[in-house]
Amino acid sequence: MATIQDVARLANVSVSSVSNVLNGRAERMRQDTYARIEQAIEKLGYRPNQIARHLKTGHIPILGLLVPTTSNPSFGQLAVAIEQVAQAKHNYRVLVCNTYRDKQLESKMLDDLIGLGIRAVIVISSLNDERHIEAAIDKGLAVVSYDLGIDPSKPAKHDHVLPDNRLAGRLAANHLITHGHKRIAFVKPKGATISRREKIEGFLGAVGEAGPEYSAQVIDIDGGSRFGDNELGQLGFEAAQQIAAMRPRPTGIVAVNDMTAIGVMAGLRHCGLSVPEDVSVVGMDNVTVSEYVWPPLTTVATPVQEVAETMVEQAIARINEPGTPPREFSFPPHLVERQSVSAPGKPFQPNISSD
Amino acid sequence: MATIQDVARLANVSVSSVSNVLNGRAERMRQDTYARIEQAIEKLGYRPNQIARHLKTGHIPILGLLVPTTSNPSFGQLAVAIEQVAQAKHNYRVLVCNTYRDKQLESKMLDDLIGLGIRAVIVISSLNDERHIEAAIDKGLAVVSYDLGIDPSKPAKHDHVLPDNRLAGRLAANHLITHGHKRIAFVKPKGATISRREKIEGFLGAVGEAGPEYSAQVIDIDGGSRFGDNELGQLGFEAAQQIAAMRPRPTGIVAVNDMTAIGVMAGLRHCGLSVPEDVSVVGMDNVTVSEYVWPPLTTVATPVQEVAETMVEQAIARINEPGTPPREFSFPPHLVERQSVSAPGKPFQPNISSD
Repeated sequence: MATIQDVARLANVSVSSVSNVLNGRAERMRQDTYARIEQAIEKLGYRPNQIARHLKTGHIPILGLLVPTTSNPSFGQLAVAIEQVAQAKHNYRVLVCNTYRDKQLESKMLDDLIGLGIRAVIVISSLNDERHIEAAIDKGLAVVSYDLGIDPSKPAKHDHVLPDNRLAGRLAANHLITHGHKRIAFVKPKGATISRREKIEGFLGAVGEAGPEYSAQVIDIDGGSRFGDNELGQLGFEAAQQIAAMRPRPTGIVAVNDMTAIGVMAGLRHCGLSVPEDVSVVGMDNVTVSEYVWPPLTTVATPVQEVAETMVEQAIARINEPGTPPREFSFPPHLVERQSVSAPGKPFQPNISSD
Repeated sequence: MATIQDVARLANVSVSSVSNVLNGRAERMRQDTYARIEQAIEKLGYRPNQIARHLKTGHIPILGLLVPTTSNPSFGQLAVAIEQVAQAKHNYRVLVCNTYRDKQLESKMLDDLIGLGIRAVIVISSLNDERHIEAAIDKGLAVVSYDLGIDPSKPAKHDHVLPDNRLAGRLAANHLITHGHKRIAFVKPKGATISRREKIEGFLGAVGEAGPEYSAQVIDIDGGSRFGDNELGQLGFEAAQQIAAMRPRPTGIVAVNDMTAIGVMAGLRHCGLSVPEDVSVVGMDNVTVSEYVWPPLTTVATPVQEVAETMVEQAIARINEPGTPPREFSFPPHLVERQSVSAPGKPFQPNISSD
């Protein structure tokens, strides 16, 4: 790659003359010298190193993004939305790090990003513990986290952006209740994250308020390390075997995300059960493919674009004004009705919806 | 963020003393001075800026990755595999840039990555024209491209890694032929890319060799700018409307990728047709969700892990030895049989497969 030295050599001038041209300080330069430097820059395809330049100003135009894995389409779509906003509005690039929800790895990545000169990071994590994030903030990193609310018991150190997970759980449960379901279950991988806990709180709250004849349960699938974000379909598939064997069997299922819901539907089918006639299923996320599976999946959608815009704007604003008090931004989800829910024992009917 | 100056101030020493400690040149330093500097580094959480350090050595441990979009699960999964290999084997991070198959954007991203000091980029593109890639190589960038073969008409400038797309097209067509299909169609978005052309060549070759009673056609869906990688399901859904209206109707469909195939299956169902009884469908990619849709999708799989390893190894090898002659690495795909193909007019039967 051509260096400033190469340009100087080819133009037969000093490095500082080249630097003067690059930095617009060439008023007193002779026209022919100026032209020779310009030609040398052009000929060698020389580009001043932006990092070197940004080191001087203290800015490197890269946002860090920690995400469990972009191979989970719900995070993949959010990562793309974040990159589009960062690029279109701020000409920032995004450095994506997949963390597989591993706290040690998250912690290491945050340190590495600081070491690379990156000033702001969006953390999509859902881990219960934010201490490693706060340690990175103490080292000067600007952080915006996704999916975690501010802990009211202590002062917040960074901006929190989150879907209203309680409302998501509530919307899903109420949709099943409206269709006449009384035995309802929530399916998730074993292990608590804050967002899962909140979804379940909303879910249980809605079923509890519906009356004593309604029952709710949480089905935890323990796959050990087999179930990362790449195996959510398999997790749902195995959950369906358990559900099919239950007596009495729940008639309505809420899955913690769409990929799990799609796996649940496949697993129920595998056990000879129909969706929604035998068991209705509601997902969460509204990933693109949920519209094309069979039956098309009723799900709770997050406003991905608005979430992405808020996170990028907050991350970049905080680089410029680090002292701004941390805020929490909550985005209400909404139900997207398709064909995976009906009245118990009935096929899907497009007209009876009351949502 | 703490600077080396902050450390020097707190330890009451010169910046060069701190630098000596950081660089292991402290043999002649007094023990108490050494301890004071170490404590100041610890207390301030100071981390030497890796970029500044790498600028001196000319190495920044980041690989660039251009990809149409990680929200297409086939690229999302490949991007994750690339990042895992880069990180685990070389402690490199990956800077992912979504290019939406836009040549201008690809070109700009390559220039930006060079400007950031990045030395090697993996380009997943499939655009017909490689001139912008070659221009970046001329500026000193090491490039490994995916999905493009070396153009035999001129000297190659970089490493090409690709699935054997002709074989993929051939495997898909032969699977349908083996099941008794005679009218077979290939569905893709309008617009030629090299990988699409190769898949179609393999597909048409296999049908042509089967005999004169076999007919093949290519169905191009023109969605204009509506169909990016996020809308492949919708594209397949609309293709299915055309297929359902054709007389005579093809009985076997090969889709250019799984997301399109999943949309085709949904669209056929929407038109009252059954898969595979009325129309059999084969996808390409073997994305995770293809196992959980209905019917589970028969597809042609690429060895993603091997592809990712080869690309990362070649990219990093080329940083160290830029003069190595460019090579082409081709990976044979294989058929994954599920339940979306049967004999024409027959339901799926697990036992009749001859693959």
